[in-house]
Order: sequence, then C-alpha cells, then structure tokens
Amino acid sequence: MAEIYRASTTAPVNIAVIKYWGKRDAKLNLPTNSSLSVTLSQDDLRTHTTASCSAIYTTDSLLLNGKDQDISGARTQACLRELRSLRTRLENANPGLPKLADLKLKIVSENNFPTAAGLASSAAGFAALVRAIANLYELDSSPTELSRIARQGSGSACRSLFGGYVAWEMGSQADGSDSLAVQVAPVSHWPEMRAIILVASDKQKDVGSTAGMQQTVATSTFMKQRVLDVPTRMEEMNKAIQEKDFQAFARLTMKDSNSFHATCLDTEPPIKYMNETSWAAIRIVEAINAAAGKLVAAYTFDAGPNAVIYHLEEDAPKVTGVLKSVIGDKEGWQGARGSEIQAQDAGLLPPVAVQTLKDGVSRVILTGVGGDPVKIDDHLIDASGNAIVR
Amino acid sequence: MAEIYRASTTAPVNIAVIKYWGKRDAKLNLPTNSSLSVTLSQDDLRTHTTASCSAIYTTDSLLLNGKDQDISGARTQACLRELRSLRTRLENANPGLPKLADLKLKIVSENNFPTAAGLASSAAGFAALVRAIANLYELDSSPTELSRIARQGSGSACRSLFGGYVAWEMGSQADGSDSLAVQVAPVSHWPEMRAIILVASDKQKDVGSTAGMQQTVATSTFMKQRVLDVPTRMEEMNKAIQEKDFQAFARLTMKDSNSFHATCLDTEPPIKYMNETSWAAIRIVEAINAAAGKLVAAYTFDAGPNAVIYHLEEDAPKVTGVLKSVIGDKEGWQGARGSEIQAQDAGLLPPVAVQTLKDGVSRVILTGVGGDPVKIDDHLIDASGNAIVR
Repeated sequence: MAEIYRASTTAPVNIAVIKYWGKRDAKLNLPTNSSLSVTLSQDDLRTHTTASCSAIYTTDSLLLNGKDQDISGARTQACLRELRSLRTRLENANPGLPKLADLKLKIVSENNFPTAAGLASSAAGFAALVRAIANLYELDSSPTELSRIARQGSGSACRSLFGGYVAWEMGSQADGSDSLAVQVAPVSHWPEMRAIILVASDKQKDVGSTAGMQQTVATSTFMKQRVLDVPTRMEEMNKAIQEKDFQAFARLTMKDSNSFHATCLDTEPPIKYMNETSWAAIRIVEAINAAAGKLVAAYTFDAGPNAVIYHLEEDAPKVTGVLKSVIGDKEGWQGARGSEIQAQDAGLLPPVAVQTLKDGVSRVILTGVGGDPVKIDDHLIDASGNAIVR
Repeated sequence: MAEIYRASTTAPVNIAVIKYWGKRDAKLNLPTNSSLSVTLSQDDLRTHTTASCSAIYTTDSLLLNGKDQDISGARTQACLRELRSLRTRLENANPGLPKLADLKLKIVSENNFPTAAGLASSAAGFAALVRAIANLYELDSSPTELSRIARQGSGSACRSLFGGYVAWEMGSQADGSDSLAVQVAPVSHWPEMRAIILVASDKQKDVGSTAGMQQTVATSTFMKQRVLDVPTRMEEMNKAIQEKDFQAFARLTMKDSNSFHATCLDTEPPIKYMNETSWAAIRIVEAINAAAGKLVAAYTFDAGPNAVIYHLEEDAPKVTGVLKSVIGDKEGWQGARGSEIQAQDAGLLPPVAVQTLKDGVSRVILTGVGGDPVKIDDHLIDASGNAIVR
C-alpha cells in the first residue's frame, strides 16, 4: 500500500494593535499599510492542522471542523502552488527525496474555539495550513519566508507564523516579495501581556472585511490620511514594545483601533463593525483607566463587535477583576489567572455601559501573549489516511 | 410710567448638510471649515422671541420656556454688547432717536418643539435673540451683518438668520469679520425639499459639542483631512443646490455626515453620537434608495442620535411612506403631507434595522425647507413689561 506522509502543527490567533485594512494589490494581498499584532496563546485559541499526502488520495482536500471546504479559490490554490514549488526545488536538488510535490494533499483542521464566537479564524487557519504543509514537505524556509505564502491565503495569517509581537511590513515590490512578517519581540521579551476577549452577540452582520476594505480604499479620504499616519505609529509601537512601555502601547492600540473604524465610517456606504456592546467596553475601559490614574487597559476591535482588552498581568485585578464584577456570570471565567480579583472600582463604572455589557456579552476568553506555531505528533489523519473524527 | 419698547420674531432651526465641527478661535466661534445648511420650516420648529427694553427693568434678563437663563456667559454678553453698539451708532447719528442702548433688556423666548427631543435649539435660540433685538433697535443691518453677531452666541446660529439654503463662510480674518452666513438659495428656488426627523431615544449622553469639537481638533489627524476635503464639498453642494440635483445633494449630505462622525471616532478619547437607532435609519435609507434605483433619501446626523432624512416632495411616498409602514405608530405623523402613502417596498427592508427602528424611535417630525425669520406682533411680554405665561 502507498505510504501516507503526515505532519501536524498548531497555529495561533493574532489580534492586531496596528490594523491591516486596505489592499494595494487584491490578488496578492498586498496591504496599503504595515500592521503589528500580538500573537495569542495557543492554550486558549488555536487551529490544529494535519497535512498529509499520499498516492492514495485522488484530489486535494481540506476538512475544517468536520466540514469539507472548497479549496478551488485562488487564495488557497496560491498557497498550495507556492509550497509545492518549494518542495519541487528540494526534490530537484536531492533526487533521493520522495516526490511529495506530485502527490495530492489531504488536510484536516480543527479550531479549539467556537466558530460562533466570531473570532477571525482565517489567520490561524492559513498559518496552520502553510506551516503544516511546510512541515510535511520538510521545507527549510524561515517563518518570514513562509509568511509570504500565508499572506496570499489571508493577509493577517502571515503574522500568525510567529509568537510574541509581530510586524507585517507592507513592502514596496509589485510582486509582494518584500511584504513579509517579522518578529518584533518574542513572547519571552514581554510575557506579562494579557488579553481578555469580550465576545459580543451581534444581531446584524455587516460587510465582510475583504469587500469592505476595498470600498474604504476606493471612497475614503480619511484612508489616505491613515496610510500617512501608520508609519510613525508603527515606529512608536515598536518602541513601546521594545521598552515594555504599556502606557504608549495602550494609547497607540486604542488610537489605531478607532482610526481603523473611523475609516470604515468614512466609507461610501459606511461600514460599521462596533455595536453598543463594543462602545460599552470602550467606556468601561476608560473608567478603569481613570480609576487607576494611568492606562492599565487598552481596547481594540477587529472587523466585528468583540472587544479585545490588553492589560498587564500585574494589573489583572484592576482590569479583569472589575470586568468580572460586571459580567462574572458569563461563560469563560474558569481558570482565570490572578486569583485575588478585586472589584472596588466597579462603583465608578458608567451604569448604562454596565447594563449594556451585561446584556451584550455572551462569553469571555481569558488569554495572553503566546508563542510560535508548534509542530506536534497528534495527527488528525490516521495512518491509513482517514480523517480522525473526534 | 416709562415706555416699554418691544419687538418679536420667530427664527428657524437649521440642519447642516456640510457640518460645522471644530473652531479655529473658540472665543469668537470661528470655524475650521465652512458649512452649509437647510433652514427648516418654522411651521414645525421655531423659536419665538420677544425682546424688550425699558427704564423699568433693572437688569438684563432672559426667560426661556418659562425658566430664567444665566446670561452672564461670554457668548450671550458678546451678542448684547455688539447689538447695543450698533444701536448706539444709530442714536449718535440721529439724536432724535430714543436712547434704547442704555436701557436694560428683557427677553422672553419659547420653543415650539419639545426640548426633550434633543434637537439643537441653540441655533434657533441665538438667531431669534439677535433678530428680535435688531428689530427692537430698528437696526438697518443685513442678515449677513447680524450673522457675525449670532455666530458669537452659537456658531450654527448664524445660519438661522436666513431661510432656504445657507452657507457659513468660514472667513480668514483673525477678528472674524468675514466669518459670515450668506444665502445660497432662497426657499423659493427649491421648495420641494422635505425632511423627516426620527427622534431617537438615547440612554447615554456623550460629550457636549463645544468640548467635543475642540478635542477633535486637538487629537484627530482625520480632522486635518476633513478640513482639506470640505472646500471642494462646499462647491459641489452649492452646485447641487443651484442645479436642484438631488442625487448630488444626497450623496454629499450622507458623505459629510459620515465624515463628521468619523472624525469624532478618531478623537482621543473617541466621541460617539450615533446609536443603533441611527444606524438602523442609515440601513433603511440605503434600502429605500436601493429599491428606488436612485438616491431618493439622504440621512444626516448632528451631535446626537436623531436622524434627519432629506427627500423631495415627489419621493415622499417612497421615503416617508416606507418609514410610516415601519414606525407609523409613533407620534408625529398627523398632518403628513403626501396623502397617498405607499409601502410596497417595506418588504425589502433589513429586518434587524426595522426592529431597531421600531424600538428606538420615540417620535417623528415631518417638515421641510422653510423661510427667513419672521417679524411678528405676537409678543411674549405684555405692555406693562411682564412676561406672558401661556
């Protein structure tokens, strides 16, 4: 019987503090500005992917959370083509290697977080896909080299090939060869960064991010200003991370999130991702910071209503403690780090925001900065080439 | 007994289609950009003010809706000082005139719309105050000359000295002498312009506009871009009005409202005036326009959640008709113009937006473009100098 080649990885979610919004080349996913993210811990949020190839497979396939995915799209095809091309190069240089590039791929993938949570899973998904196939093909490519490939699957996926603090440098080449992710700092540099995600129930889906960002590029004059603003903000954010300056990190994170959503609002027709729950989170973060007399919490919002609130471990009582006093009855508090949670400042919170948060948050996820994708031996495809259903 | 001199006026509300947001001189209310508004009909929304002066009065006073107002503020004082100065000039030129400038002023004012509606009443209020005193003093100043004075009371008040379509030219002089309102077109030029105001109940008051706009000027880079964008938009809007081109008028109106609120969101800390009801109004206007195959309705939002939806009389069935099918049970539909209201397009409306509008709109006001302030003989102060309580 033909051999079944297998390799597995987990890959993390990342949440940008300088947002990616707008493509200068939609086919290659080349952005109009650089971006920067914090990679979150795979203990809490990860995609687990097994890539496999064998002569017994008759087509390329991808099973995600038990459901067959359409992989005929240009983006997935670009990733597969690029990875096969790198494998072919290896095989040509070393004729003793098995000819994996010619075999069909079977890929099985699982997220450990609820899809319904509305967390951007495409970043972790494409990072895991690219990383798993690179493992399978035993490519010697660096994560930065692989980021060029993952970017073509989903822009922000390129940042999920690293743990810690990761920049996606926009680059200037037309072919995208210099539009790559680099690690700004490893998780060990500033491991105290925590994040609480307030998962907001959203009644109304707005425009998808791919269509939305190109409407913004086409119609928003503020987008032009944003593109001018980001380079300085990237430098300042990099400096804040190098110096572990949470004040600067927090200010820049909130400013950039607001700037991104303002360009959405300036789009024709206007795009809206934040809802009243999101705004309640903003007002409560402001109240927490006011009570602390400094910035101890920083909100950011992707293309959806969920709030991600960054804070340092030492300030967990002031941040998650206060939030727990408000929405402690929601799912997700089990295993909360920082056992001595206090809520003495909860009385200072704006009452309307408190009620809106109670009504609008469906669950919380407590997490923090985390590490690189991890190669694992826990395969989602068995030795006979069948997907393992759990 | 000493004579009681009296004069009365009504003055209109105006709703900007190119918004005023940001002062380059906070004391003189000099704006960072020009703005343009539609004056609304005084049949529906007006301030009625009687100005009176007499030797029997011992202090300057202002009674608004039956409540004594503090008039010691710099803005009201600036208006009174400027008007007295113009009267003094007249008296000096014609020694036969009574010496009114030396007498104390008693001013009584009433709005015909509920204060709770959250409609910006300061524009109509200061316009009526200035116009009533100018009538009392028999000043020969033009409305544009008076707009320089009203502007110092409340920026947007300068636009309420005219009916029809009114521009506030920002000017360039440091003393504000050229920051004045001019009529772009009288109501007779384009009398078909209608407006429906959806009064939204708001749980949460955000930052007041005076403080808010200066935070924006200080912290938003998008505000800089807005200041660069507005001159072209003013020209385009002026052209749209001259040519009675509702398509262009609608597109510019919505774009400018969104641009204004986007600068608010780009402010540190972010300012929010629109709520979910406002967004539901946006989505319903978009659906109405999509069903019509052209722009038949244009939303705009001031510093609050109320939607003002401009439309032409001929499109009333498509606009107010559809809205009535959704929120016809709210107060304010009585006397609706356009008797043959149809709602055949209501099925195309986004259901979540429909429900949000039903939940969030407390009343509607049906109105349209209206005329200049009107001098009237219906005084709110009797011949003995006493306020008339109704």
